[in-house]
Amino acid sequence: MNLQLTEDGRLRHLLTLDGLPRAIIMQILDTAESFMDVGEREVKKVPLLRGKSIFNLFFEPSTRTRTTFEIAAKRLSADVVNLNIATSSQTKGEAILDTVDNLAAMHADMFIVRHSQSGAAHFIAQHVAPHISVVNAGDGRHAHPTQGLLDMFTIRRYKGEFHNLTVAIVGDVLHSRVARSQIHALTTLGVPEVRVIGPKTLLPTGVEQMGVKVFHDMEDGLAGCDVVIMLRLQNERMKGARLPSAQEYFKFFGLTPEKLALAKPDAIVMHPGPMNRGVEIASEVADGPQSVILPQVTYGIAVRMAVMAMLAGTGNA
Amino acid sequence: MNLQLTEDGRLRHLLTLDGLPRAIIMQILDTAESFMDVGEREVKKVPLLRGKSIFNLFFEPSTRTRTTFEIAAKRLSADVVNLNIATSSQTKGEAILDTVDNLAAMHADMFIVRHSQSGAAHFIAQHVAPHISVVNAGDGRHAHPTQGLLDMFTIRRYKGEFHNLTVAIVGDVLHSRVARSQIHALTTLGVPEVRVIGPKTLLPTGVEQMGVKVFHDMEDGLAGCDVVIMLRLQNERMKGARLPSAQEYFKFFGLTPEKLALAKPDAIVMHPGPMNRGVEIASEVADGPQSVILPQVTYGIAVRMAVMAMLAGTGNA
Amino acid sequence: MNLQLTEDGRLRHLLTLDGLPRAIIMQILDTAESFMDVGEREVKKVPLLRGKSIFNLFFEPSTRTRTTFEIAAKRLSADVVNLNIATSSQTKGEAILDTVDNLAAMHADMFIVRHSQSGAAHFIAQHVAPHISVVNAGDGRHAHPTQGLLDMFTIRRYKGEFHNLTVAIVGDVLHSRVARSQIHALTTLGVPEVRVIGPKTLLPTGVEQMGVKVFHDMEDGLAGCDVVIMLRLQNERMKGARLPSAQEYFKFFGLTPEKLALAKPDAIVMHPGPMNRGVEIASEVADGPQSVILPQVTYGIAVRMAVMAMLAGTGNA
Repeated sequence: MNLQLTEDGRLRHLLTLDGLPRAIIMQILDTAESFMDVGEREVKKVPLLRGKSIFNLFFEPSTRTRTTFEIAAKRLSADVVNLNIATSSQTKGEAILDTVDNLAAMHADMFIVRHSQSGAAHFIAQHVAPHISVVNAGDGRHAHPTQGLLDMFTIRRYKGEFHNLTVAIVGDVLHSRVARSQIHALTTLGVPEVRVIGPKTLLPTGVEQMGVKVFHDMEDGLAGCDVVIMLRLQNERMKGARLPSAQEYFKFFGLTPEKLALAKPDAIVMHPGPMNRGVEIASEVADGPQSVILPQVTYGIAVRMAVMAMLAGTGNA
Repeated sequence: MNLQLTEDGRLRHLLTLDGLPRAIIMQILDTAESFMDVGEREVKKVPLLRGKSIFNLFFEPSTRTRTTFEIAAKRLSADVVNLNIATSSQTKGEAILDTVDNLAAMHADMFIVRHSQSGAAHFIAQHVAPHISVVNAGDGRHAHPTQGLLDMFTIRRYKGEFHNLTVAIVGDVLHSRVARSQIHALTTLGVPEVRVIGPKTLLPTGVEQMGVKVFHDMEDGLAGCDVVIMLRLQNERMKGARLPSAQEYFKFFGLTPEKLALAKPDAIVMHPGPMNRGVEIASEVADGPQSVILPQVTYGIAVRMAVMAMLAGTGNA
Repeated sequence: MNLQLTEDGRLRHLLTLDGLPRAIIMQILDTAESFMDVGEREVKKVPLLRGKSIFNLFFEPSTRTRTTFEIAAKRLSADVVNLNIATSSQTKGEAILDTVDNLAAMHADMFIVRHSQSGAAHFIAQHVAPHISVVNAGDGRHAHPTQGLLDMFTIRRYKGEFHNLTVAIVGDVLHSRVARSQIHALTTLGVPEVRVIGPKTLLPTGVEQMGVKVFHDMEDGLAGCDVVIMLRLQNERMKGARLPSAQEYFKFFGLTPEKLALAKPDAIVMHPGPMNRGVEIASEVADGPQSVILPQVTYGIAVRMAVMAMLAGTGNA
């Protein structure tokens, strides 16, 4: 039983890409394709979600992610309300559910949920009334499914197919909800070789069981790749014991033109942003001809519009 | 002379329920009734306030209350601007009036005002131009009229009439603007018996002069009630000298199934939210069959839409 | 080559009034005139910018200025997203450009930029794609062009012509981006005598080279003026070594009825707000018959609508 799907197999919530059927992922990508031109129109709006109430429920602040959802919702003509809700580690789940129940009683149609604790969006989805949909906009180290989907959209746009690709994910996989969502999507879509590259301290133990090949040497890992996905290295990691210094990290795991040359000549470079230039990626690469980092952002709006429109079509939303 | 009414007796501002005529209160409840279906429509919007500029002027932060007004205004198709304005105790009234004058000069139609000082909304209403309406969204310990109105709407929905009811308000009446607004509305609407129940330290001296019966024993107070309204106990009160502990408070004044059994079998339980479960109310009661706490929230949107629509109909708004 | 204009001389960005041609300034004022009635309509909206995405990019917090742009954009039916972006002194320009690139990739049409560092809006304008326009909403001590324009609009409304006026700008010119924008506009529009009045410590050295007459004595400076523009004195200045005290400042440079009597009998008094009553201006003057301080605010909405509409007409926006 998948909490994300209705009984007849349509999208009910978007919480994780783990276990999300290939057909649903492809449907999202196809729907996103149909929204690609909205952003280029004179009037960047379609009336699909007019009169719907979408709440950006951000228990963890993130101007950037909130903005992408706000823009996507407004282009669908929905009414968006932003809520930044401070929580402490003592905040009980009960208090979160009371908040959610209150907003539901205001006839909410959709919650976009960001929370520092893994499982928060699931927890809310298990609880809400049948007509309300939940989108996970990042929960702890667990998942960030719309980011994973926009990454798949990007790969499909540039590479056409998934079945013949070698994709490397480089950096701090351990703390990255983005990496988890990417790995689930890539394996579901039939990418034959998914690699993770990073120092031992930044790779989860047993990550091989997710169906990936592990590399601790970047040169080895990049060889022959079609897609190179760089992960953001949180500044706080560098202050801890796990890493010697930003310079040291860049030397071994920062993506430079030299290292990128080891991948296929037409390899694309991706990054979920915001970038730490000179830490995980060199500016020459970030701004170079193989970078598709800004197209990722553009596609992210279309993908989020697609997810919202599909969710609105299944519930009463 | 009532600042809240026009010369011909229509609603001009909504500042307090103290002295607001019964006919106006009933008109608000009837108008709210007519908005009840908007929240359940496919497109949750009516064009009544299209092109109006409504400012949420929050001198005291309150995500929850701000959200209810924002949603109500958007469902009326108004343009809403949220302003969180930090004030210090040194901030002069003059500075508040300059802010208000500035927003008025931008052709504001309505101010929703929240302030930690009693009288702030009145102060602004006395000052604004004739075409601008002010709604008090909570001022100090003084009043929270839209909360009081949604409570009356709730009681009418569940009990039909007011003239045959016994209503108890339980808890920290002393610090509660909600309780004051409720007492004014209940007495205006002809409720024959309004009770306040709480420890001496949390009841205002002379509260009997508001037309209520005072009980310090909860069992006595609840006996035979049709409506039980629980008040939120601010955490800060429990840290002070007024109360021994949350546990102790719950023992004497927390609403448990056992205590609720002393009220009439069909008594309803209300709470303005957010609840402190296990302090003023047991979860079994909050989530139980007699609780109408979430319907209160739903009705709150319709009531706020009604107030805004009526105000917009009297001024030029 | 003017970054603000297209090759065929139309408005491309609005960054500074320094060097902005007289014809463009007059066009903005005329366009603003045509928007003056929108604020007084039953439905205060025109559909000119429907479906456009306007980002309020505030690197320096300013509820007041943000509100004026938000209202102006909403009255043009644009979708507005507010972003408050905390920056530290260590934040590299690179990080700002990455933020801007990201928003551009979301198909932004316009950035309203506020930043504590002079040149920030220019820096962004130099970088953005051809279809995106930048409006400087205040950068360091450099410029605040929409404020300067609304001041010109105000002067034209009350005085009709510019070629026969004596205009005095009084107070802390040194730290004032508003004063710089006013001086550029006044000289461009052909005001024959622009005066700055203030203590030596608050006037920039060499300010005469901007085409103004310098006065350190307020009585001398106000004599015969048609327009008196008071500047806000930031509280922080008074704590520093530059000024003895607020009382002392008011005595010498505060605008009182007595001092104002030295200007022409029909002189108007302006102030960009927020005012420090009793510091740079007496309440009798601020609220007196010669004050046009609140009309300035009203005109500010029309002027900002005009700037946005003109920019949207030149780019793809």
